Amino acid sequence: MEQLEVDLGERSYPIHIGPGLLEHGERVRAGIRGHQALVVTNTTVGPLYAERVEQALAGLEVERVELPDGEAYKTLDQLDPVFTRLLERGFERGATIVALGGGVVGDMAGFAAACYQRGVPFVQVPTTLLAQVDSSVGGKTGVNHRLGKNMIGAFHQPRAVVIDTDTLATLDERQFAAGLAEVIKYGVIGDADFFAWLEEHMGALTERDPAALTTAIRRSCEAKAAIVAADEREGGQRALLNLGHTFGHAIETGIGYGRWLHGEAVAVGSLMAAELARRLGWLSDEEVHRIEALTVRAGLPTRAPADLSRARFLELMRVDKKARGGEIRLVLPTAIGNATVTADYDPEALAATLDEHHALPARSVSRG
Amino acid sequence: MEQLEVDLGERSYPIHIGPGLLEHGERVRAGIRGHQALVVTNTTVGPLYAERVEQALAGLEVERVELPDGEAYKTLDQLDPVFTRLLERGFERGATIVALGGGVVGDMAGFAAACYQRGVPFVQVPTTLLAQVDSSVGGKTGVNHRLGKNMIGAFHQPRAVVIDTDTLATLDERQFAAGLAEVIKYGVIGDADFFAWLEEHMGALTERDPAALTTAIRRSCEAKAAIVAADEREGGQRALLNLGHTFGHAIETGIGYGRWLHGEAVAVGSLMAAELARRLGWLSDEEVHRIEALTVRAGLPTRAPADLSRARFLELMRVDKKARGGEIRLVLPTAIGNATVTADYDPEALAATLDEHHALPARSVSRG
Repeated sequence: MEQLEVDLGERSYPIHIGPGLLEHGERVRAGIRGHQALVVTNTTVGPLYAERVEQALAGLEVERVELPDGEAYKTLDQLDPVFTRLLERGFERGATIVALGGGVVGDMAGFAAACYQRGVPFVQVPTTLLAQVDSSVGGKTGVNHRLGKNMIGAFHQPRAVVIDTDTLATLDERQFAAGLAEVIKYGVIGDADFFAWLEEHMGALTERDPAALTTAIRRSCEAKAAIVAADEREGGQRALLNLGHTFGHAIETGIGYGRWLHGEAVAVGSLMAAELARRLGWLSDEEVHRIEALTVRAGLPTRAPADLSRARFLELMRVDKKARGGEIRLVLPTAIGNATVTADYDPEALAATLDEHHALPARSVSRG
Repeated sequence: MEQLEVDLGERSYPIHIGPGLLEHGERVRAGIRGHQALVVTNTTVGPLYAERVEQALAGLEVERVELPDGEAYKTLDQLDPVFTRLLERGFERGATIVALGGGVVGDMAGFAAACYQRGVPFVQVPTTLLAQVDSSVGGKTGVNHRLGKNMIGAFHQPRAVVIDTDTLATLDERQFAAGLAEVIKYGVIGDADFFAWLEEHMGALTERDPAALTTAIRRSCEAKAAIVAADEREGGQRALLNLGHTFGHAIETGIGYGRWLHGEAVAVGSLMAAELARRLGWLSDEEVHRIEALTVRAGLPTRAPADLSRARFLELMRVDKKARGGEIRLVLPTAIGNATVTADYDPEALAATLDEHHALPARSVSRG
């Protein structure tokens, strides 16, 4: 097992990575101090893993709430069953919420923990690759509004992140590939060596080789932990983690939550950012090609949905947490291994990028 | 005009108290840094004061949302119009929410500010006595759940609190008296001199004498600011501010939000706490009598609703943010001017207090 630390002073917490962490539940149990725990999971993950977690918590007062599965249900009103259960069972300020599932479960359960009695502890037990390498670390929690993704939320750090790599065995292909999009992101924004390592090991990763997966997860979590420790509330460099997310959120909101997975939208969004950077002369053709090739090998889409017009894209992109003074601020790569947040680009280049990306037929698998 | 400061390091903020602060809106304007402001108010206060506030904000992009008036509407789903407006108008992370109204508006608008894009600035412009002396200061925000009051929320400090004492002129008698309940509370929990001052000046206060009101508001805000600065997140002494609130929340939840005003429930709850303290030998008959006499002079009820049984009271009191290990922790006065938070009391004494208070007919005005 590997262990990292997210260094945030008195809110610091460990990230445990390895096989069998749910089978042998000490790490989950160690994250809980009170005598009450609510496992929040969904109808897909709950039947697979909730009993293991609950066994690890034997002796505590344990409850379980299963949310419906999918981004479409990541809404404020879907939190009501969580609050209702907490209150019905008399759960107190010392109670811990355990988020067992993917990014949607982690965001929702974490936000419920941020709000219940103005804040109770929570532990992240991510079971998708995307949640393991990205969303479970760093304390961003929240839900979607029909007019914008993740627009209602809180910064609320977990007490621990427990990543059982065995859970990836049950993950479907699409979900797995979606996680790889965020892994690739870390290479593009800050680590050319890791990007090169990914080019070498993408085959092993898509075959779910345990050693390769553990390395990819560890290096992703290291990158995330370092950025979060330096900029917890996204005043600066943390925004780099949003490579592809402004384009991606526009896709997710524009076509309706749940049609594309978040990681799929981020993959396409990252390529759009790379394409825009190429038009600006910041990235070479070859660099764009390398990013696109790696994305294809990961099994990810490379083109935006054909039904999103340039105008609609721009409208949706203006609703973004990075926006200031109506400008669309974007994370753009300046090399493989380097990126910047900027609104200082030629808007014609953005327009051309959007036109190209929405006009071309998808080269990758088509998605409902 | 008087000015205090809530000392919270980089989250410190001023409290301005005086007449005409909305007519001359500089203080409201000074609390806003960005170029967008959303005034959140209700259907009662909005028509009276929103235009003045909006004039003070001339030059900014200003929107207004009017919520329905009353505690019954302090729910998660009633926040949707706020989020929808913010998103429809493209309000960004630098946008400021202005809470114009009483405690319900302040709590809801503050919670919306805590959650929108994971936190935007807000300014409190309290227009009821209760909000001016208590709820607008200290950063507690949130909404009710049908199973418990203020159970969903956040700590989110305002950038400024602007208290225009002129707004009290339009406050109805019941709302005014409800505010006095929280004023009396500061005397009971920590300031025997202030309590004596209130005994001397209750006549002037109920006649809404401007000088007496300004003094009462200032001293209340001073007390609140000192406690919040020492214990922002209620790890210790801040809990003293909840004198009467565990009993009071049980009343509000038990009979249905909105039937009693929060301050009315707190008044009765404080008397129940005093009565319990008397039974424990901590408070003399005379001290209890002084608190009750001041409560009566303020125009407040002194007895719990007759339809709340002892068993129901106890059940509701166990759902309290101060609860630990199933115990009901209470704020109990140990003298006029001193109080403690404890679960170390004879439960029979609590039972007897509940029996007496729910069995007797109300001595004060009857309330629907």
